[in-house]
Amino acid sequence: MAKLQSLFSMRHLLVLSLALNVSLILRMMYDSQLDLFFYKYPRQGQISNLHPQNKPRLLISSSFSNSSSSTCEDHHQPPPKNNNRVINLDHGDPRVYEAFWRETGEKTTIKIAGWQSMSYFSDVSNVCWFLEPEFAEEVVRLHRVVGNAVTEDRHLVVGTGSSQLFLAALYALSPTNSPQPISVVSASPYYSSYPSMTDYQKSGLYKWGGDADKFDISGPYIELVTSPNNPDGFVRRSVLNRSEGLLVHDLAYYWPQYTPISSPSNHDLTLFTLSKTTGHAGMRIGWALVKDKEVAKKMTKFIELNTIGVSKDSQLRAAKVLRAVSDSCKLQGGGESFFQFSHKIMTDRWKQLREAVQRSNGFFSVPTFSPSFCTFFNQNLVPHPG
Amino acid sequence: MAKLQSLFSMRHLLVLSLALNVSLILRMMYDSQLDLFFYKYPRQGQISNLHPQNKPRLLISSSFSNSSSSTCEDHHQPPPKNNNRVINLDHGDPRVYEAFWRETGEKTTIKIAGWQSMSYFSDVSNVCWFLEPEFAEEVVRLHRVVGNAVTEDRHLVVGTGSSQLFLAALYALSPTNSPQPISVVSASPYYSSYPSMTDYQKSGLYKWGGDADKFDISGPYIELVTSPNNPDGFVRRSVLNRSEGLLVHDLAYYWPQYTPISSPSNHDLTLFTLSKTTGHAGMRIGWALVKDKEVAKKMTKFIELNTIGVSKDSQLRAAKVLRAVSDSCKLQGGGESFFQFSHKIMTDRWKQLREAVQRSNGFFSVPTFSPSFCTFFNQNLVPHPG
Repeated sequence: MAKLQSLFSMRHLLVLSLALNVSLILRMMYDSQLDLFFYKYPRQGQISNLHPQNKPRLLISSSFSNSSSSTCEDHHQPPPKNNNRVINLDHGDPRVYEAFWRETGEKTTIKIAGWQSMSYFSDVSNVCWFLEPEFAEEVVRLHRVVGNAVTEDRHLVVGTGSSQLFLAALYALSPTNSPQPISVVSASPYYSSYPSMTDYQKSGLYKWGGDADKFDISGPYIELVTSPNNPDGFVRRSVLNRSEGLLVHDLAYYWPQYTPISSPSNHDLTLFTLSKTTGHAGMRIGWALVKDKEVAKKMTKFIELNTIGVSKDSQLRAAKVLRAVSDSCKLQGGGESFFQFSHKIMTDRWKQLREAVQRSNGFFSVPTFSPSFCTFFNQNLVPHPG
Repeated sequence: MAKLQSLFSMRHLLVLSLALNVSLILRMMYDSQLDLFFYKYPRQGQISNLHPQNKPRLLISSSFSNSSSSTCEDHHQPPPKNNNRVINLDHGDPRVYEAFWRETGEKTTIKIAGWQSMSYFSDVSNVCWFLEPEFAEEVVRLHRVVGNAVTEDRHLVVGTGSSQLFLAALYALSPTNSPQPISVVSASPYYSSYPSMTDYQKSGLYKWGGDADKFDISGPYIELVTSPNNPDGFVRRSVLNRSEGLLVHDLAYYWPQYTPISSPSNHDLTLFTLSKTTGHAGMRIGWALVKDKEVAKKMTKFIELNTIGVSKDSQLRAAKVLRAVSDSCKLQGGGESFFQFSHKIMTDRWKQLREAVQRSNGFFSVPTFSPSFCTFFNQNLVPHPG
């Protein structure tokens, strides 16, 4: 686990404070029961009375899985039957794109017969033998259409969400015969679940090493680079540039609705997830682009031992959804592409957020992002992080 | 890892030999390209020339994931372009029931629209917040119809196959603050993947302790009880009966097509999997019946950190398939139930196997099982392990 001092650094407090800002502003903006960005359920034992008694009270929670003792039931119980208003920042739920998918109608409806997809195997000639060829094809096509990742000379590994691929990557990159676990680091502020995801199994292969900026142990290490970053939305590069470093790039938000696409990403090991790309969190589908065949084999081995593959139903459905996204980008005249739709939503949300912040007379603040050229939309654009 | 001596015990060699027998007999029986029981792909570097040169040569492999250095590509590459015949015993693929599901037609076809099942959450009031209520309902109904498990006062936890639930169970049952990992044991012969599944992460919480019959360390331990057992098909009970033992019952094969149902199983923690129940391995759906709420919470927490839930698409499809199984058991007059169909297939297979063994004039042998009363079929029946 990270040391206490790195857990409570100034940057952390800033992020916490920013999160609180956002929650308060959103609360002001959405008094109704809209649940597009956040689920509104309380977490037991974390009651913060921020308002005078005669105003609605906010019940705030911090992060999805940072506390190893918390349980899902604690996280997601239904709202209490009183007038206390609740915003749970535990976990975003990307149903914000649902309206687009409703519009697509039958085009994205999948039909699977009872006798289909019964086998464990999908493509026995592939390093990742449980990868559905149809899904693989649509992943490659979409990256080409968007221009956000090099797919040539890469092995594609599918996972049950990118969480599983994150663990598979740690497993694959860890030295097998080292007496000490390899350190896993990321520049602060980092995704709040990284420490618990890394350490919950008390693995002898890898362990959480905290803030990359403060990491001063020599030897091999794994650095997680999340870009655009979760939670603060800024574009990132590796901060440690040592020869013994192994990099995992989490590019979940490197899509045109969140950030300008500068060039196709070209890393050794890159993670993507459908939940951020198209909003389909319930499918639990993620994918990794992996340069080294042996690393791809070890990641596949991890998933084999962990879950013996990945739901075929969801892979087939994901293929259909990704195909619809690529098709929407190729529409001649009329018809809005998925990224035009989702970019517009993100722009509107940030506009509303900034207006609300402005009305707070300096009591709240949100980060400012510089515009840059987006090769997908072919114009200068300001980022709108997720 | 298990000690060498326990890995190569006489019982292990026996099982290996039995497996070899089965493979040889099956090879004799099915010269054609039938792939109902086993996939016929070679594994590199494991060529065993058992026949004279002028006869077809068999390429034999042992177990799916016992060797941590093996990769999926090695396992599942397509057959070589020569006349060598191959039977891979790496992994059963239960497509044997496909014919039944083809017969059900539209009744088990699922349609999911592009905008459905987008959220992470399924039932926020449940300990297992990613459990689809429809799936939960059909699991409980089927156990009642079959009479193979008590579901009252149990928490249902869904997993990406029972492999994930096996790991979730180890995580949930391991003491959190113990200086030493808890030992995980099972009576030999045990499922060949147990040691590697337990040890691949080098967890500090639990470690493989080998054959339960030889386990002589005092203190807490986890015993895996697989009944009917994989690989030998015999009905089992816990062999260590110490007060500090924690039991995980893997009842994947406790269904009427494989073994007579004697009474509803009633354990602390029981695992089931769709792949063995109905043959739908590609869905990757398993479930656990858990008595203790805190254990169910910790298992849910494991799956949250591992994959943030389980594919909704597959849960919904599994619900449809399980409903069809329960419905088929309630048909008045005419119409074969799923278990009548699958029991008949298993009976036929074992009949053919025993005939082939008999023709071998004592060169091969298969175990003999005693008949017992099956409460589901309401008659005395002989087991037909999977």
